[in-house]
Amino acid sequence: MSENEFSVIQKYFRPLTMGRDDLRDDCAVLAVPDGYELVVTTDTLNEGVHFPAAADPAVLARKVLRVNLTDLISSGAQPAAYQLALAFPHAPDAAWLSAFSGALLAENEIFGIYCSGGDTTSTQGPLSITINAMGFVPAGRAVRRGGARDGDLAIVTGEIGHGYAAYKQGNIYVPDAPLELTEIIRDYAHAAIDVSDGLLADAGHIAHASGLGLELRAADIPVTGDLLSAVAGGDDYTIVMAVAPDKAESCLQACRDAGMEQVALIGRFYVGDGQVDLLDANGHVIPVTNRGWVHF
Amino acid sequence: MSENEFSVIQKYFRPLTMGRDDLRDDCAVLAVPDGYELVVTTDTLNEGVHFPAAADPAVLARKVLRVNLTDLISSGAQPAAYQLALAFPHAPDAAWLSAFSGALLAENEIFGIYCSGGDTTSTQGPLSITINAMGFVPAGRAVRRGGARDGDLAIVTGEIGHGYAAYKQGNIYVPDAPLELTEIIRDYAHAAIDVSDGLLADAGHIAHASGLGLELRAADIPVTGDLLSAVAGGDDYTIVMAVAPDKAESCLQACRDAGMEQVALIGRFYVGDGQVDLLDANGHVIPVTNRGWVHF
Repeated sequence: MSENEFSVIQKYFRPLTMGRDDLRDDCAVLAVPDGYELVVTTDTLNEGVHFPAAADPAVLARKVLRVNLTDLISSGAQPAAYQLALAFPHAPDAAWLSAFSGALLAENEIFGIYCSGGDTTSTQGPLSITINAMGFVPAGRAVRRGGARDGDLAIVTGEIGHGYAAYKQGNIYVPDAPLELTEIIRDYAHAAIDVSDGLLADAGHIAHASGLGLELRAADIPVTGDLLSAVAGGDDYTIVMAVAPDKAESCLQACRDAGMEQVALIGRFYVGDGQVDLLDANGHVIPVTNRGWVHF
Repeated sequence: MSENEFSVIQKYFRPLTMGRDDLRDDCAVLAVPDGYELVVTTDTLNEGVHFPAAADPAVLARKVLRVNLTDLISSGAQPAAYQLALAFPHAPDAAWLSAFSGALLAENEIFGIYCSGGDTTSTQGPLSITINAMGFVPAGRAVRRGGARDGDLAIVTGEIGHGYAAYKQGNIYVPDAPLELTEIIRDYAHAAIDVSDGLLADAGHIAHASGLGLELRAADIPVTGDLLSAVAGGDDYTIVMAVAPDKAESCLQACRDAGMEQVALIGRFYVGDGQVDLLDANGHVIPVTNRGWVHF
């Protein structure tokens, strides 16, 4: 007989609180440190859309957590805790639960975070996982999309195309979630975003929100696989930053010192209306039809 | 042609931020007032499990928000904001989106809250809605399940059975989410919980977490419909409190003054191991087989 909802929560999810909660209350209580603000982000992964059926639960756990953590890191926030909402198509078996919760436990230790609560439900559809991740940022210092300035340089923290490559192979790409970039982003970036929809789409979000345009030099973009697939594919969770030109070199060096070997300066923002152009070695615009992932 | 994900967010969900955010960033930033802690809760509603297919989107919006708000209120927290995660089986049409977001906007005004962000995805399954609601409580004053004491009296803030009655009729019960109880709960309750799984189950959660047993007097429980269905049915979101005996009368009066006409003293906690007994007029235990809702 499979375990019920309450025993599942107590057996598999309670250890994820790292001793901070017993998961018996409907609410979690978090103390936000003095002088800090709360940063919150929500990402849902649905079976059959974001990941294939019968995906490895440990890989899935790391993926759904990290796509949220990269949002926090991109905003310069230190991840602290997360709420976990799981909708199961049937009672989950012990092996699935062990692998999923075991992977989250390891992630908690890597990132210094804990599960503060959530909701466990049944659904008539496929598995759906929503994480609401919370972090802290010194008050007033959150990095947003809209802060890029005319003349800022675009820096990408790692190689693009891993998400697309994994997708084409039916695999799940688990990003790094580079915690060590949190302070660097806070110190250097006027704007930042993680590449979830695709480099062109996400860099375009910065440009659009900042009232700028962006020229990217194709040859400077670190990619794995085909360039046009890589820049449109998304699901990479590398981070794109807009950095003042006189700070770009020290930002690149700080990223390299933090282990980002592939960090690269890939383009420049200018006064515009959100357009992103990909330029070839001669400065000509490379035509792009697919610019990124849209759910509907 | 239906609108895409980004235009849906900007057209229908951005107004829900009440001007506090443009919903372009992946993260929201919230300032927690000095001397307050953050209280967080997550509830998911899935079509076909929590609500019927083709449910009225306005009713659904109020329901999914309020089941979260009652969790915050039960913990003595003032609701502040929420993250909204929607997984759509197909591109939602304009009428659905208008009704759903319009109802949320009205709720925002009633409760003084706003939508801080969320995620909009597609799913191969039925509609799924997860809300992560956040509130503030003076530091150290959150009311939890585990705080009830031997001899405390059990108070229920309203009639039980509305959730079950609506369910039997294929309707969706929209609870009140009595914001005006927030301070009363903080001032009077050693423990509190909203009735989501069923009165017996949820009162049992207080008893169990507090290392107590609970005797409920059936005749004193304000119910609509059949008693045994009402106390097991759940989905009521009235609030059960454990209150010191010498404070019970003033707590009842405070609740009445706040408009809770049906508020009632229904039982007493004693040293025990989580059992909840329903007693008839002669003090005999009424046998109960169905004690509440379990997802799996």
